[in-house]
Order: sequence, then structure tokens, then C-alpha cells
Amino acid sequence: MTDSETTTNSRTADVGSKGRSAAWTLEGPLVRDLSERVLVNDLIAISNDRAGGLRSAVDVVIGPGDDAAVLRSKGPVVVSTDTVVEGRHFRREWSAPAEVGARAAVQAIADIAAMGGAPTGVVVALGCPPDTPAAVVRSLMTGLAGAAAGFGAPVVGGDLVATTQVVVTVTVIGDTAGHSPVRLDGATVGDVVAVSGPLGGSAAGLELLGRGEHEPSALVAAHRVPTPRWAPAPRVHWPSMVPTAMTDVSDGLWSELRTMATASSVAIRVDPERIPQPPQLDEVARRCGVDVATWVLEGGEDHELMATFTGSVPAGWSVIGEVVDEEPGDVVVTDDPTGHHGWESF
Amino acid sequence: MTDSETTTNSRTADVGSKGRSAAWTLEGPLVRDLSERVLVNDLIAISNDRAGGLRSAVDVVIGPGDDAAVLRSKGPVVVSTDTVVEGRHFRREWSAPAEVGARAAVQAIADIAAMGGAPTGVVVALGCPPDTPAAVVRSLMTGLAGAAAGFGAPVVGGDLVATTQVVVTVTVIGDTAGHSPVRLDGATVGDVVAVSGPLGGSAAGLELLGRGEHEPSALVAAHRVPTPRWAPAPRVHWPSMVPTAMTDVSDGLWSELRTMATASSVAIRVDPERIPQPPQLDEVARRCGVDVATWVLEGGEDHELMATFTGSVPAGWSVIGEVVDEEPGDVVVTDDPTGHHGWESF
Repeated sequence: MTDSETTTNSRTADVGSKGRSAAWTLEGPLVRDLSERVLVNDLIAISNDRAGGLRSAVDVVIGPGDDAAVLRSKGPVVVSTDTVVEGRHFRREWSAPAEVGARAAVQAIADIAAMGGAPTGVVVALGCPPDTPAAVVRSLMTGLAGAAAGFGAPVVGGDLVATTQVVVTVTVIGDTAGHSPVRLDGATVGDVVAVSGPLGGSAAGLELLGRGEHEPSALVAAHRVPTPRWAPAPRVHWPSMVPTAMTDVSDGLWSELRTMATASSVAIRVDPERIPQPPQLDEVARRCGVDVATWVLEGGEDHELMATFTGSVPAGWSVIGEVVDEEPGDVVVTDDPTGHHGWESF
Repeated sequence: MTDSETTTNSRTADVGSKGRSAAWTLEGPLVRDLSERVLVNDLIAISNDRAGGLRSAVDVVIGPGDDAAVLRSKGPVVVSTDTVVEGRHFRREWSAPAEVGARAAVQAIADIAAMGGAPTGVVVALGCPPDTPAAVVRSLMTGLAGAAAGFGAPVVGGDLVATTQVVVTVTVIGDTAGHSPVRLDGATVGDVVAVSGPLGGSAAGLELLGRGEHEPSALVAAHRVPTPRWAPAPRVHWPSMVPTAMTDVSDGLWSELRTMATASSVAIRVDPERIPQPPQLDEVARRCGVDVATWVLEGGEDHELMATFTGSVPAGWSVIGEVVDEEPGDVVVTDDPTGHHGWESF
């Protein structure tokens, strides 16, 4: 906390950079002032611009503007849908519109990666209040389409509706380039359990924003837009190291381990000492008076991949535990005195 | 209007059958009382139950419960997303949860049909207030999955989030069984313009509900759940009558004609006398003091298909006009004294 120690309200109002709050109140016409056609055409132009030069854009047979989009596919189609809601997943004071859009894209694409797939196209259902500045909607779509393009996926369609909160539903279409998809239920006794990158950064960033703090900036940024370390189509990139089971860490590591252990009818042992953390996480946890294990095991929203492997793991991944022949569905965290658990949507 | 001529408020409260209002306040636990996992598993069970025996379910490689669903595909993938919002597209007094779910499915699947495709799978992003009865969410999903199954499509995945309004985003995946998709921009001078079924029923039903009237019930039902007359995969069913351009009538016929004419750089002439209407539409319009052409030309939400053909049209379709060599983008309605226009989302 910096200069405001007064009331909760003034602290909240002070939270976040002014730039981010201001990004929701841009000058110019409101959404309700424009014809839907004009605004939708703007969003299509933004989508096409961000997708420009994408390798995967050659897979777009029919892009935005028709009743539906048409994508070429290499084998079975992978599809997942994910929603970001104002007040629940983000606050206007803490995240700019472009960050909200980028976050919605990353978390939806992570589900395709978790099947060993790469995204080929994205459709967006965007709900916002009619008094939202049109420039805010454009900014959100710019962030969303830019993040999707970073994973090789163009925005190929969408729907724009009037809602009381900002609600962004991103549905991602992808494929596994003909390989078998990696399921949740294939973990086998003897496998090692590994993660693709550090965990706990998003939860720490949320705590910092709640306290009106903005440093370390990397942790705050990790909450605004997750930047997981996997590349798209991991299945394709590791021909000799196929995961037996995989998911992305969206609801917290402990919760995801439980889900995988239950689906696979195995138990999993995890050593929290081996779970990679972003820099300064321990120090920030001490400062905030938080058990760092809470962030690392329960935080969620980092969207790194967690997978089980029969032998070696891909470069950059960290082994954090093993699949064991104990009570099916059990997750045993070494030296964990508390009953950790994950994120609930309600 | 029947027995309540008092104030606007009491009329509104009186509107709709009691059964439909009551369907939103069912007994039992609320969404926030259940663990997300329990409720999601319920919804998956409902989806699987409704999809039972579906021919297309053999195309499901991985269904709900993993990070993403995987569907077999026959050629290019058709995808579209569509949202239904409480207070904007439906009211709790006028539509039961199952009707809202069914409507969301039908309107999203219509976009796949409009490309000449058949749906192979559906994903659902469902937002609702935490104090919604869990039974309401189950009912909505039952209606949605049942309607999708009617078109041959199983619900293969979803996301459940807390929102202040009920917001249902349905994304449909489909294919054209290897045929070329039917675009919006292929209408050619000399083509006939035809529609797959009667228009104006949904708009009339909305007007009746607003007046607290429930007869004719077929018109009221047409607003609650559109029942367009096309079968899935129309492109496949008319091998000798391929549309040159096609769309579904979601925003009103006039608006869709404008969009098609503009995309195809042609003009379209329409004779309103030839547009099919549901039974009793003229009589109800007179009773309501509404120009029936407003419902037929601007009503929207009937989700019948509108297409252009080089020669004959499929059985059951009605020719309503022709593509002419006049000012590109123009839609000329014979004997139309007013400037009709379509539905705007804001």
C-alpha cells in the first residue's frame, strides 16, 4: 500500500493504474450510438488485421461476416468454450479492456493445448452494456485478437449483445494435426507428474491489486493476462514424450490434480518444494502474510499445462510428483498440514 | 388484454402463464449451494441423456468432462456462436427455462443450416445468478440439449459462470459433408429468392405476450421457441437445387435481404403478397392495430432460411421475389410505402 491508508472505499478507488480505469471511459460514441453493422464491421476489420500474415489463416475458408465461419481441418476437431465475467474474473479498475480480451483468449486456447491441440480459429460472443464506449469494445477485441494471433489463431466470427455486465465468451476450434488427443484420464501408476511453468503468479497478482499495490509488476501482470510457457500444439512438438494425461491449471493445481487422479483412477503424490514459482513469490507472500502454498496449490488461472509422462518430460517442464498406486482419486501433498482446494465458479 | 386494465406494472406482472414464471422459482438447492463439480456433472448427464441414440453422436471422440471436446469431421468445419440474454431476448414471465434453452440452440444451429451444413456438436457457456435454483439450470439445459438433439447435435462441452442476468451462449460446430458451403455473397441477377417457411410469427407472439394475451397459442409458441421448417443439412438434401446464396432470417427479412444484396452486389425485388405467413397472422395484426407487413418484413427471430436459386426451389419453399440488375444493395419491396428495417442488438 502506498499513500492511501484511509477507508476501504478510497483504497479500492485508488487501486489499479489510472490508465486502466480510464481505458474503460474513452471518448467518442457509445455502443448504443452506432448501428450494430458499423460496430461489427469494425470488429471484423480488427480481427482480420490482427490475423494478417498468420500461417493458420490459410485454414480459413470463410471468415467473419457470413452466417458462420468455415475452417479447414486436419483430422478431428477440438472445441472448448470459456467465459470471462466482469466483477467475477476481472475488475475495470484493475484490468484494461485489451487485457480482458487477451485473458479471455489465452484461457480458452489453453483448453485446446491441454488436449495436445493447436487452435485454428476463435469465435467470440461479447456482451456489454449499451453505454460502453465503442472504443472500449474495439480495444477489447484488439487485445483478444492479438493474443489469439500469438497462438496462431484468427478470430473468425462472433456475436455482439447488450448485457448489464461485460461478459466475454471465447470458443476455440483446433485440431491435433491427426495425432490422438491427450485425455484427462490416462495417468498411469509410475508416471511422473510435471508442469510447464511457474504457478501462483496470478493469485499473488490478485492479492496485490486488492491491496492497491502494483509491485512486483510481473505478478500483477500475471493476473491481468496469463502468459503460460507452453507453445501451441505441444503434442506435435514432443513426438517422443507424449503425455499420458494432460490439463491446464485453471482452477488451481490441487483441484486439477484431484480431477485428473479421479478421472484416471489413480493417486498422485506431489512435493510442493518442486513446484516452480515465479520470482519473488515467497517474499511477496511473507509481506502479505499469506502461506505461499495457498497461491501455488490453489491459485489457479496461471493456465500452465500439467501432465503425466511415462519417461522424460519436455525441456523447460518441472517434475513435481508421481502417479502412485494408492486410493484412487487421492492427491497427497507432502508436508501439507491444511486441506487445500481449488476455485469454485459460484 | 383480458382482465387487467389498471397500470402498466400490474399488466406486466399479469403477463405470461403462471406456469412459466413458477418454472424459474423451483424448490431445492440454489446454484451457489452446490459444488460446481456436482452441478456440471448433472448437466453433462443431461446432455448425454438427450444425445442418447443420436446418429451423430458416433462423431463424438471425446465428450463433455475433459478440457475440450473432440469431434470427427467430414471436411471443413462450420462454426457459429449466438447468445440469448435475459431481459433482451426473453423474459422469465414469458418463457420457461427449457424454452430459453431450446431457443438458444435453434437460433445457433440455424446459422450452420444457413451455410448448407448440419451440426455435429454444441458447446454451451451458461451464465446465471448464484441464487438461481439448480433445477432451473437443469431445466434450461434439458431444453437446450433436447432441441440440439432434434437437429442431430449432442452437447459436448460447456462452461458455467456466475452472472447478474441469465446469459446463454451456444456455439455450434458442423460440417457440409464435403460439399461447398453456401455463402451470403453468391446471389446472381436472374435468381429467384425463396424462404423455407412462414415469417412474422415470432414478432406477433412477442406483441401478444406484451399485451398479456396467449392466443393464438401457435404464435406465442413461435416467439418462445422458433420452429423453422428446414431440416438440418439442407445443402445435402437438395443436390440438384443448390442455393447460390443463403442466410437465416434472424434480424428480419428486410434486413437479411439488404445484407445479402449488399454482399452479392445485386438488387433484390420482393413481393410481400408472396411471403408466407403463419395462420391467423392478418387477423391478429388487425386486432392489435399493427401493419402485418411490419411483422413479416421486420420481425426476425423466425429463423427460417432465405436463399437464392438459379432455377427451381426445394419442396415446401416459397418464391418471394427475384434478384435484379438494379442499384447494388437495394431491396425493393413492391407497394411498400414505409422504410422498413431490421433488428438492432443495441
